[in-house]
Amino acid sequence: MSAAPIYFDNNATTRVDPRVLEAMLPFFSEQFGNASSMHAFGAQVGGALKRAREQVQELLGAEFDHEIVFTGGGTESDNTAILSALETQTGRNEIITSAVEHPAVLALCDWLQKTRGVKVHRIGVDAKGRLDLDAYRKALGPKTAIASIMWANNETGTLFPVEQLAELAHEAGVLFHTDAVQAVGKIPLDLKNSEIDFLSLSAHKLHGPKGIGALYVRRGVRLRPLIRGGHQERGRRAGTENAPAIVGLGKAAELALQYMPEELGRVRELRDRLEQGIVARIPRCLVNGDISQRLPNTSNIAFEFIEGEAILLLMNQHGIAASSGSACTSGSLEPSHVLRAMNIPYTAAHGSTRFSLSRENTQEEVDRVLAVMPGIIARLRELSPFWQDDAPASAEFKPSYA
Amino acid sequence: MSAAPIYFDNNATTRVDPRVLEAMLPFFSEQFGNASSMHAFGAQVGGALKRAREQVQELLGAEFDHEIVFTGGGTESDNTAILSALETQTGRNEIITSAVEHPAVLALCDWLQKTRGVKVHRIGVDAKGRLDLDAYRKALGPKTAIASIMWANNETGTLFPVEQLAELAHEAGVLFHTDAVQAVGKIPLDLKNSEIDFLSLSAHKLHGPKGIGALYVRRGVRLRPLIRGGHQERGRRAGTENAPAIVGLGKAAELALQYMPEELGRVRELRDRLEQGIVARIPRCLVNGDISQRLPNTSNIAFEFIEGEAILLLMNQHGIAASSGSACTSGSLEPSHVLRAMNIPYTAAHGSTRFSLSRENTQEEVDRVLAVMPGIIARLRELSPFWQDDAPASAEFKPSYA
Ligand SMILES: Cc1ncc(COP(=O)(O)O)c(C=O)c1O
Ligand SMILES: Cc1ncc(COP(=O)(O)O)c(C=O)c1O
Repeated sequence: MSAAPIYFDNNATTRVDPRVLEAMLPFFSEQFGNASSMHAFGAQVGGALKRAREQVQELLGAEFDHEIVFTGGGTESDNTAILSALETQTGRNEIITSAVEHPAVLALCDWLQKTRGVKVHRIGVDAKGRLDLDAYRKALGPKTAIASIMWANNETGTLFPVEQLAELAHEAGVLFHTDAVQAVGKIPLDLKNSEIDFLSLSAHKLHGPKGIGALYVRRGVRLRPLIRGGHQERGRRAGTENAPAIVGLGKAAELALQYMPEELGRVRELRDRLEQGIVARIPRCLVNGDISQRLPNTSNIAFEFIEGEAILLLMNQHGIAASSGSACTSGSLEPSHVLRAMNIPYTAAHGSTRFSLSRENTQEEVDRVLAVMPGIIARLRELSPFWQDDAPASAEFKPSYA
Repeated sequence: MSAAPIYFDNNATTRVDPRVLEAMLPFFSEQFGNASSMHAFGAQVGGALKRAREQVQELLGAEFDHEIVFTGGGTESDNTAILSALETQTGRNEIITSAVEHPAVLALCDWLQKTRGVKVHRIGVDAKGRLDLDAYRKALGPKTAIASIMWANNETGTLFPVEQLAELAHEAGVLFHTDAVQAVGKIPLDLKNSEIDFLSLSAHKLHGPKGIGALYVRRGVRLRPLIRGGHQERGRRAGTENAPAIVGLGKAAELALQYMPEELGRVRELRDRLEQGIVARIPRCLVNGDISQRLPNTSNIAFEFIEGEAILLLMNQHGIAASSGSACTSGSLEPSHVLRAMNIPYTAAHGSTRFSLSRENTQEEVDRVLAVMPGIIARLRELSPFWQDDAPASAEFKPSYA
């Protein structure tokens, strides 16, 4: 193929916006001082960090800039919030989370359960990926150290009603954390009018650099640092401030806020054009997730009777990047834990493919993908021992379109 | 002042070498894929990470590239090694460290002592900053989970005999970690011929970017991750790989290795010219640390009867950046914990100033600093209520030069 490659894997990571990179550049080799140093080289940097913190604050709709703690990424933010709650909430050793969280939450919870005797409630979801609210309510209690429920699922884009979940948690006297790594920059947030105590974000999901994230910690909520040492971040996260990356996150936040109406509009239109086009052109495919409560950029489509990895391979040969499951769990042959939790039938879960767009994608790209997908799927189905033109739909298999 | 500013604070942080930045740039907005992704955007990155790991391996003289685990910096590496040892060495709840470690080790140990009942042995140093070897030997025992002793002190540059300390630890059946954040890139290392189990480094101290570091973990030594989630770094450190920064660290390691003979030669000459020039021109100053066992780039000089912060202020007005104590503890009025551990007399410790050079400094800069320092010190001493031209030297005050 000679056409420019098409990147529809923005939930895995995004391209750094050139304006973000431009904002970062001076902090590598010119204003390179240590922000904590007592001289001109250090002082230059301090102001830039302050501005970046305010830019993140604005994107989140947080009340105070010091509610933002810069970290090394989304995973570190998630780990910090949950481990902190277990320490500060003495006498409470239960965690409530969902069955469809990112490994940054689930792997930590598994380990806490195995080695620390922590009881973990993994609230289930229905076939559309919607949280079982009753089970969530029932799990909340005087033993709960924290409830941690993601804002948007990375695989399906399904949104959870986290503002409501935070209120329910508070009614039960429980701290609430949300992994908003996929939500931040894609939907409007207004933390000051919510009861959310902790929120995790990661810059590289919103056209910022990798290796930098933030943990929002509501004023008055205690935080026990995960990484101890110097007094950076008001003693809440030690280590020399990563000034270029922090400035980059700030700029990415500013741009995301500025583009927000477009993300909600143009990106959604592109995504819908892609999704509806695929469903119209290709038989036996199902859109996974809650179509009505979903990120504007994400479409997760199950192609029955084929393997997601084979689809990706052929798409890659056409210069198209997408994903099956999340990048973190790729390489494994099992369908993702998210699709399993949704009880997507095996023959469909295996062929599920995630298309995740961004403001950098174009309609021309969508149309190029639409042009090649039917051929790719048909070719793979010809090779599939399970596929027959007139195969009956699997019992539980209810296509959401068509 | 109009002359270009002079940066003698390279132990706080270094300028990113332009060749390092150049190596990083493609990974922000061109090869920006997630290294774990199953498509061309991801695959491009995997090879670059492999090369970077080998570059770090070479700088450390490590036997295997998979002994290198990329982290978010020196502090995270230190925390990871120590917390891991406490978990894997069941039944052992003592830590041996020195009184002059960086806060990345000491603050963690203080907290472990206060909240986890861990017994911490903080081995003392003599007036030259040399470790009390007898006390170290005696502290090692069947209760020791880990001994963690820095390779080079960040404030004085004093080197500890960590290869010997590692052997002593192993003789007692104890794991050995070294915080080599200040040593890596400044002195030759040969880990494969040592018994060191863990080693921490941080890229921004060797002309690499901030927010990235590594933990060397000797093959066969168990590591419990500090940050849990995806399977990155063979399950030893979760979170999307920070590809640009990892590539930058790799390039910085390559350059450091290539410059090593120069660091050991030209930088040492510059440092000695500065130090001897100051001691020859300014009365009543003392070189702190072990002059014979020291990093080639560091000089810590005590100017009796004045305040380090005032010195920095006037130097800053002349466009010269240096440091008093470490950046992390600046802002406090107490002399640094390192100088206190060395029992430097109060009147001298307060006026201690750290000059830390790099391969980017020049003789012309040294000579400009030598030209202004006598005036700065004289002016401040005139203002000092304690200073008299013929004041007797404080009892314990034995200038090491002159
Ligand atoms: C929902 C969610 N949480 C957490 C993470 C982890 O973020 P990071 O890789 O920046 O640590 C990701 C992405 O990898 C994610 O999609
Ligand atoms: C000896 C030593 N250890 C650890 C660190 C911490 O490294 P970082 O700031 O990259 O986390 C530093 C520098 O700040 C240091 O000098």
